[in-house]
Amino acid sequence: MKKLINRPEDAVKDELEGVAAAHPDRLRVHIGPHFIVRADAPVQGKVAIISGGGSGHEPMHGGFVGMGMLDAACPGEVFTCPTPDQMLAATQAVDGGVGALHIVKNYTGDVMNFEMAAELLGDEGVEVEQVVIDDDVAVKDSLYTAGRRGVGATVLAEKICGAAAEQRRPLADVAGLCRKVNANARSMGVALTSCTVPMAGKPTFALGPDEMEIGVGIHGEPGRERRPLATAREIVEALTTAIVDDLPLKRGDHVLALVNGMGGTPLMELYVVYNELHKLLGGRGIAVARNLIGSYITALDMAGCSITLLRLDDELTALWDAPVNTIGLRWGA
Amino acid sequence: MKKLINRPEDAVKDELEGVAAAHPDRLRVHIGPHFIVRADAPVQGKVAIISGGGSGHEPMHGGFVGMGMLDAACPGEVFTCPTPDQMLAATQAVDGGVGALHIVKNYTGDVMNFEMAAELLGDEGVEVEQVVIDDDVAVKDSLYTAGRRGVGATVLAEKICGAAAEQRRPLADVAGLCRKVNANARSMGVALTSCTVPMAGKPTFALGPDEMEIGVGIHGEPGRERRPLATAREIVEALTTAIVDDLPLKRGDHVLALVNGMGGTPLMELYVVYNELHKLLGGRGIAVARNLIGSYITALDMAGCSITLLRLDDELTALWDAPVNTIGLRWGA
Repeated sequence: MKKLINRPEDAVKDELEGVAAAHPDRLRVHIGPHFIVRADAPVQGKVAIISGGGSGHEPMHGGFVGMGMLDAACPGEVFTCPTPDQMLAATQAVDGGVGALHIVKNYTGDVMNFEMAAELLGDEGVEVEQVVIDDDVAVKDSLYTAGRRGVGATVLAEKICGAAAEQRRPLADVAGLCRKVNANARSMGVALTSCTVPMAGKPTFALGPDEMEIGVGIHGEPGRERRPLATAREIVEALTTAIVDDLPLKRGDHVLALVNGMGGTPLMELYVVYNELHKLLGGRGIAVARNLIGSYITALDMAGCSITLLRLDDELTALWDAPVNTIGLRWGA
Repeated sequence: MKKLINRPEDAVKDELEGVAAAHPDRLRVHIGPHFIVRADAPVQGKVAIISGGGSGHEPMHGGFVGMGMLDAACPGEVFTCPTPDQMLAATQAVDGGVGALHIVKNYTGDVMNFEMAAELLGDEGVEVEQVVIDDDVAVKDSLYTAGRRGVGATVLAEKICGAAAEQRRPLADVAGLCRKVNANARSMGVALTSCTVPMAGKPTFALGPDEMEIGVGIHGEPGRERRPLATAREIVEALTTAIVDDLPLKRGDHVLALVNGMGGTPLMELYVVYNELHKLLGGRGIAVARNLIGSYITALDMAGCSITLLRLDDELTALWDAPVNTIGLRWGA
């Protein structure tokens, strides 16, 4: 295992200490239980938005805490769901008095623990809405999931809901927008290599030198099929066709296209992928009105990418364009 | 070789087409000869800043074209210097009538070709200042370089000079700032794995499963020594000591710290590295006043990182903080 870490068991703590040391102007980091909140939290009168999940997907979620996006993130150990007490403490730390939205990727442990946290918060008089993101079209059920996995649409939901919360829209509206994003977004990924979990010390799965895993999960869960390595054009065709058919997208639709790196893939390759995606969608009469290209929801050091398409309307577009100021996404601020 | 590309010989062209398709609002991309300019170029009355070099280091340099940073970038083929005609055409496309600064990383081919371009531009009445960046303390001479290699300080010089140019400072001032950044910045990198050049199809160098290359170049050039893989703490100590001793930095200095990923290293590990760097510098009485953590000057899919430290004063700090609006760096805009 080749990683820039100290002891594998300290990787998450060391990372969080690094985040705390780097960004005291914008974030407060609490170690034990671990959570990250925006420096100006709680923002009174604003719906608080909290997300979380296993570590190893950086910048998600901690890198999306800040004005216009999340109020708090709860990082678990690598690929391990955070605990209810983390979610409880994080939500209490950012509660602005008008309720909280929990954005939860659809993995069984995450959903269960966020539900427990919501119950505890309800007992204390904090209104919580939970929205589960399940945008990955690759497989119906998976290693850690009943139903579809939550992946790239989470980034888009956090941005769009964050913008709505900044406008002081009420909890029901913000949660409704989150459901709208999830309903209109689909994703699929591909792995060229496995990832390696620090505590495991060896690759999560075996992939031959000329193989790729189409439909891989962000923890290395199996996808739809293992195939011989193909060109970027063929890979984009496979991922995009699955997404477009599932949503479905039709001629005349406008989309936001996220081309996401899995952690071990350089930006150069993501632009090659975007080029193919742009051409393919154009050929089907689907306009890419907005795009986001980079590594936003990763799987440790996995080489590969995912594509997420979100069908846009004027409301979603305006919220996407609104200012945001986080480590991972920043514009207009 | 596992890469998200089509034909290896098309990788750079496909990437540039992707950049053009993704960012028509902010960039114009010219294919053959290849160059990228800001969409509002030329900006009359502003010193034009042009950089360039081999591809494979993305987001450098194309990702730094835009308000507050570069006017144009000339990407060569992978790890291959651009040609004088690229630099000539790019400079002409962004010439605002008050001269141009060429920021050149110290690799023999780059320096020679930028010098030829400057001569041609001089013949056409465009005043050009060339500043060569040579901040890598690892080795005296290298595979493609007489003297020290140019690496991470290039990002900082492009940002700081870009801010000065936006203030309409004259060419001599902007070039002077570039020399000041270079004089006050030092870098060193480490590779955990080799990179693979698309046209070569196999790793540039061999590194055992428990080895690392301390002082590696951004094209996989040999560094100071090959050592057994160490902890993040030990790696940071080795890189930082070399930088601090060379500059030298002393107790009471303020620095900008860049922790840069080499392309195949996830953000999580970069924060672990930053944590060690912050502690080490703090212990020596050196304050990290600004930081930048992410993959900014990469070496294709190499796993590893580099550290750059720039000694700050009030002038450099204010220019660093000024608004910038590029794909790779964006704040205040």
